[in-house]
Amino acid sequence: MIPIISIVGKSDSGKTTLIEKLLPELTSRGYRIATVKHDTHGFEVDREGKDSWRHKRAGAHTVVISSPTKVALIRDVEKDLTLEEIRQRLIHDVDLILSEGYKKDVQAKIEVFRKEKYKELLCTKEDNLIAIASNQSFDNGVPCFDLEDMKGLGDFIEKEVLRKEREREISLTVDGKSVPLNPFVRTFLANAVKGMIQSLKKCENPHRIEIRIEDN
Amino acid sequence: MIPIISIVGKSDSGKTTLIEKLLPELTSRGYRIATVKHDTHGFEVDREGKDSWRHKRAGAHTVVISSPTKVALIRDVEKDLTLEEIRQRLIHDVDLILSEGYKKDVQAKIEVFRKEKYKELLCTKEDNLIAIASNQSFDNGVPCFDLEDMKGLGDFIEKEVLRKEREREISLTVDGKSVPLNPFVRTFLANAVKGMIQSLKKCENPHRIEIRIEDN
Repeated sequence: MIPIISIVGKSDSGKTTLIEKLLPELTSRGYRIATVKHDTHGFEVDREGKDSWRHKRAGAHTVVISSPTKVALIRDVEKDLTLEEIRQRLIHDVDLILSEGYKKDVQAKIEVFRKEKYKELLCTKEDNLIAIASNQSFDNGVPCFDLEDMKGLGDFIEKEVLRKEREREISLTVDGKSVPLNPFVRTFLANAVKGMIQSLKKCENPHRIEIRIEDN
Repeated sequence: MIPIISIVGKSDSGKTTLIEKLLPELTSRGYRIATVKHDTHGFEVDREGKDSWRHKRAGAHTVVISSPTKVALIRDVEKDLTLEEIRQRLIHDVDLILSEGYKKDVQAKIEVFRKEKYKELLCTKEDNLIAIASNQSFDNGVPCFDLEDMKGLGDFIEKEVLRKEREREISLTVDGKSVPLNPFVRTFLANAVKGMIQSLKKCENPHRIEIRIEDN
């Protein structure tokens, strides 16, 4: 499962700037990063009159624009997605997701704080605050990095988030809904499926298995 | 598997216009449609200076913008994706994919043809041409619809593409690679997995099952 860190902070505290500085630090270490930005105001994804804009306006649920170097997708959703839903439905092939905002989401958080702007932090340890980036130090037991210390913050993320050994993961979705599994069922299902797959040629040592079954 | 139809035609034949007329016809029948547009020139996905634009410029591999009604995603790709790859990696929750262009792709095609513009069709039956939308009739054994006859074209797509009974599908991906399954293994694996899932609470009658297992 791709780890998620939310870069949070009060208004105008420098969240986007921190992400802009953190991204080159992490990508230079060889990690691929996805970012997620919440937009309450709506957004324009292509220019008026362009073909993809015309498709969307004419009622397409999803519009994809594909080029040799990048792909864009715009799709309708029925509600605000949580970071977990965004990860599950949309993001693949990256090592880390950095979201901007999402202070109410359950994911781990790094707060950006500038003493000129505010007096108090937005989050506490109870909000899953794992670090602070600030031009002031704090005595709340949460690791604090200088706003310019991207090497320190990068080391922290690498050690605490990216390198932590990930547990075996198993997810089951039935008819579009995620099904919670208790530990016994997780182990039973994973071992049973893995056992079957291992009996197939060239699948003797599978690490990541995905199965989709669709009946009509 | 979501069916794909490419709307093809020579330059300026009216592909986008046909898609614009076909979309309301199909959505009014209750279908959700995704469109795919190829863009060789590159595209802008957000305005210069906006936060998501800054994330992408700073090196994010994937950028997601999420709002209560729609979600946008921009990601790097290593090469031009085929329609099959776009379907597999990006598109969910729709009944049909209409692509604009992609005349060299293997998917089913509907050609848009206007007699004022060209003398000959771009595609033949051998190119998987399943219908023509034109202001001229053709005698090549391919169903031909008037450029304005969206009801006729919609009926054709509904009957020939959307309502065709789909076989039970099962796909297995191990460590990122699709594993071919012979009929016996398909049935065995599908029934074994389905049998286990059916024993879980609220999963008595599953139609679509997705399992992901990841070991580290």
